[in-house]
Amino acid sequence: MEESKEFSTFGRHVAVDLWGVDSEKINDFIFLHHIGDEAVRRSGARVESLQYKEFEPQGVTLLFLLTESHLSFHSYPERGFIAVDMYTCGETVYPQKGIDYIVEQLKPKNVYNKTLIRGIGEITVD
Amino acid sequence: MEESKEFSTFGRHVAVDLWGVDSEKINDFIFLHHIGDEAVRRSGARVESLQYKEFEPQGVTLLFLLTESHLSFHSYPERGFIAVDMYTCGETVYPQKGIDYIVEQLKPKNVYNKTLIRGIGEITVD
Repeated sequence: MEESKEFSTFGRHVAVDLWGVDSEKINDFIFLHHIGDEAVRRSGARVESLQYKEFEPQGVTLLFLLTESHLSFHSYPERGFIAVDMYTCGETVYPQKGIDYIVEQLKPKNVYNKTLIRGIGEITVD
Repeated sequence: MEESKEFSTFGRHVAVDLWGVDSEKINDFIFLHHIGDEAVRRSGARVESLQYKEFEPQGVTLLFLLTESHLSFHSYPERGFIAVDMYTCGETVYPQKGIDYIVEQLKPKNVYNKTLIRGIGEITVD
């Protein structure tokens, strides 16, 4: 028999902008790596690999390649701002659980959130 | 004088779902790498590094870490589907130009598109 494994294209993509976050925390690659790993675990996804860059004089980007898509962090410590995206494919993965954990850890003053449903036709936004 | 360089938090984030795409093209890491690089160039952004995975039995993920944020590809050749995100910070970078180039190269039958404006307060969607 031929291999016929297919992956689900259905995906939940949570995009959040967090403001009023502690500058040191979001300039700390190790801290962001740690909470990213835990967020992925809580959402039910898996990390395949990680890519990152520490910018000068401040700011960090982390891109987690997931079995189910990706998690990204882009931080602006000088503004107390970090943009986070978690996009996961499949019915059984819940990126909002990961995002909730990240928000809990970063304690932003303001959270702006959009959830996109993808991979089933028109992209819907909530 | 102290270093006081700040980066702009303003960002344009284009999320597109492309359907009816040639399966071989979107299972071809080299091809996607090439069009990703060119899309970044056309948008006015720069690639810092690339991370990718070829899934079994098919499908590819590429994550381009940009000076200005990221570009991602997640492909499902068995469905003729690829999800693309280009998120760039700064007023002088135009991710839609990169996305237009990718669409031109992949020739999808259907394109579903959302543009998020981020980093200035509430996330707006168009």
